[in-house]
Amino acid sequence: MSSLTSPRSVLIAGYSAGFGAALARHFEAAGYTVIKASRSGDGEQLDLTDETAVHQWFSCLDRDYPPLAGVIHNVMAFLREPLLSTTAAQLESVWRASVMSAFLLTREAVPRLESQGGGTLIYSGASGSRRAGPGFAAFSSAKFALRGFAQAVAREHGARGIHAVSVIIDGLIASDKTAARFPGSDPQRMINPDDLAAQYLELFRQPASVWTQELDIRPMGGSF
Amino acid sequence: MSSLTSPRSVLIAGYSAGFGAALARHFEAAGYTVIKASRSGDGEQLDLTDETAVHQWFSCLDRDYPPLAGVIHNVMAFLREPLLSTTAAQLESVWRASVMSAFLLTREAVPRLESQGGGTLIYSGASGSRRAGPGFAAFSSAKFALRGFAQAVAREHGARGIHAVSVIIDGLIASDKTAARFPGSDPQRMINPDDLAAQYLELFRQPASVWTQELDIRPMGGSF
Amino acid sequence: MSSLTSPRSVLIAGYSAGFGAALARHFEAAGYTVIKASRSGDGEQLDLTDETAVHQWFSCLDRDYPPLAGVIHNVMAFLREPLLSTTAAQLESVWRASVMSAFLLTREAVPRLESQGGGTLIYSGASGSRRAGPGFAAFSSAKFALRGFAQAVAREHGARGIHAVSVIIDGLIASDKTAARFPGSDPQRMINPDDLAAQYLELFRQPASVWTQELDIRPMGGSF
Amino acid sequence: MSSLTSPRSVLIAGYSAGFGAALARHFEAAGYTVIKASRSGDGEQLDLTDETAVHQWFSCLDRDYPPLAGVIHNVMAFLREPLLSTTAAQLESVWRASVMSAFLLTREAVPRLESQGGGTLIYSGASGSRRAGPGFAAFSSAKFALRGFAQAVAREHGARGIHAVSVIIDGLIASDKTAARFPGSDPQRMINPDDLAAQYLELFRQPASVWTQELDIRPMGGSF
Repeated sequence: MSSLTSPRSVLIAGYSAGFGAALARHFEAAGYTVIKASRSGDGEQLDLTDETAVHQWFSCLDRDYPPLAGVIHNVMAFLREPLLSTTAAQLESVWRASVMSAFLLTREAVPRLESQGGGTLIYSGASGSRRAGPGFAAFSSAKFALRGFAQAVAREHGARGIHAVSVIIDGLIASDKTAARFPGSDPQRMINPDDLAAQYLELFRQPASVWTQELDIRPMGGSF
Repeated sequence: MSSLTSPRSVLIAGYSAGFGAALARHFEAAGYTVIKASRSGDGEQLDLTDETAVHQWFSCLDRDYPPLAGVIHNVMAFLREPLLSTTAAQLESVWRASVMSAFLLTREAVPRLESQGGGTLIYSGASGSRRAGPGFAAFSSAKFALRGFAQAVAREHGARGIHAVSVIIDGLIASDKTAARFPGSDPQRMINPDDLAAQYLELFRQPASVWTQELDIRPMGGSF
Repeated sequence: MSSLTSPRSVLIAGYSAGFGAALARHFEAAGYTVIKASRSGDGEQLDLTDETAVHQWFSCLDRDYPPLAGVIHNVMAFLREPLLSTTAAQLESVWRASVMSAFLLTREAVPRLESQGGGTLIYSGASGSRRAGPGFAAFSSAKFALRGFAQAVAREHGARGIHAVSVIIDGLIASDKTAARFPGSDPQRMINPDDLAAQYLELFRQPASVWTQELDIRPMGGSF
Repeated sequence: MSSLTSPRSVLIAGYSAGFGAALARHFEAAGYTVIKASRSGDGEQLDLTDETAVHQWFSCLDRDYPPLAGVIHNVMAFLREPLLSTTAAQLESVWRASVMSAFLLTREAVPRLESQGGGTLIYSGASGSRRAGPGFAAFSSAKFALRGFAQAVAREHGARGIHAVSVIIDGLIASDKTAARFPGSDPQRMINPDDLAAQYLELFRQPASVWTQELDIRPMGGSF
């Protein structure tokens, strides 16, 4: 799958100006038609946690775009909050943004990908996908859930050509937003969004004999 | 904490006739007042995923029962269903029963336990808490989430006396219900509910210098 | 197995004045005959990495002691050393003390235990059994190896009654030796050797329907 | 590091006709000078577990080859043997081939790589690096050890430019040797050595902002 022999689309869910834009550049340069979706901002403005909306949108995609090659789930829903001040609404909102959206997209994408002989699903995780630290009851719980979901998809649909991958992003992705949210962080110790986008593209290109299910990524010298 | 010097309560959430009853017997024999809650059946009939209901109920507990020593979360919410036929409602329902209930109970219990010098929170997991197999996208996603939640509680509140444990129940608990659901299973290869209840009691009794955060349990010779 | 109906022995390998002595007290109080072995110090002075010596010693045990109920492997072989100043001799010595000794003891013990209907093997691990940090190339490599070894024993001989457990001791065990080696450590944040010994005894007592394969232990509030 | 600006060497330890040759082709095509070593066969015939021999050989490499860019450790030392019939000599031999060789090569390579601004070390693992099954007491113990070793190297030397990676090869690599050893295996479900070699090359090319520490690889539909 190292080159596209016919037009294919890739859907970026949770599109953002930083890493989302880098993904779009890299996949477009590789010949993919890029479809962007987010709650607000560039691309299709869509509530990815709304079952009906997601279902109808995929019908439009079928009509308007080349066949799907894969989906990149990049909805972040970051929350650091002490357990006792976390609200039920926050817990649910973080889970819904992370997991319900991934579920709805996957359920729509899988039959379409299988009808094309397969495809790639990438779920963006974080350090908190494997280790739940203080302040991350809601966030890590959702990221653990997403990691388990990705494993189940990989094991259930792998033999039918579905390559489901968790990327464990164990560091901060450099962006204006990151600089504002984590002031004092050293940009030299951050993940370059273009470098990361290139890694995602490599996952789409992995031949069927060498599939990765879980890829950890961190900057050189990052503690882990 | 190997013996009770004053009356204390333990709350069993997701009480059931099989393992729940065994837990009740063992904790009562050890001197605890047992409070039972489930959606339907014995004990308090309560929607453990309803924030207001749980909050009000804990106020009643404060009035009616000895101080809390801990909570046992045993809401199972088992689902085996192919990914493509899983509904959004099922995904949410399994998560809500597993994770939202654990969150609501924990948020109420932690301040009460800390005011008593600490206490024990046990979250019942399953094989699917660590490995998500085919057919378990919803179930494992929820169980992964619960495991992450328990870790976050342990790390955030451990130093204040909260002993949060995941028990990974890697096997079937023998009961009439299990026999009906998994016909053909060998009862000799199942977990005895009384044996398991005794292990939960031991976790409540672990001295503060030797706390376990995650306990795997399986019958002799069980594959894993 | 919650009480001994006939005399049984338990072998403590890597016996030491601190935790080893606590183990001996607890198992003797529970009715076991305790057999102690270490390279130097109390008990049998024996090179546990010497195949012939271990083999001959077990023949003596058959003659002199009640049938074996289990083995506790507690050979520590701690080493913190920068990678580049670690010698090949150190790497080998740490591995030999940790892994070769466990292998030789296991190979002798398993047939004896199986002939008695089963028994318990506990391998003492450390934080470094699951996470290899800087300075621990030799130590963690050996502890990872021991953890893998214990898993293989559990899976290969579990159905024949062999209960093989790794205990992940994620903290310092309080002792004079520990105080000298890690000056400034807070004894309140250490593992009490008697508490830990009681946990080991509980593992020997786990009924066959509720076996644990890996038990993590750390003091309240310990970071992990 | 996506292209070579000056001549660099890569050392393949445990060179073999199948995967080793594929690695050599891919790295040579990418501009690297390939240095091959194995106990017997193509390339330098060298006992990689002999401290003096390895040390002297690196002195020769300094003289005869371009500066090192990295090392690929691919010494397999496969053994499937029941625990009770495994000999101490086998346990040691498997460990020595897997771990001692990795240690000796790493200790020589790290200072050389650091003097060049960094480099890549890849340690080839297997399914048994993470899960120790029956029959694999010796093999998995050694592969667990190697995984721990790689982690320690990554954490200790990552900030100085050393990118240490474990590749978890979770499947059979197609070759004549594999076909002979595992008759009846479906070549369609095997890892293509050229595909795998390309993945190793990608790891060498990962920019410093997106390093992977552990990469699992399996063929499409492989069970795990």
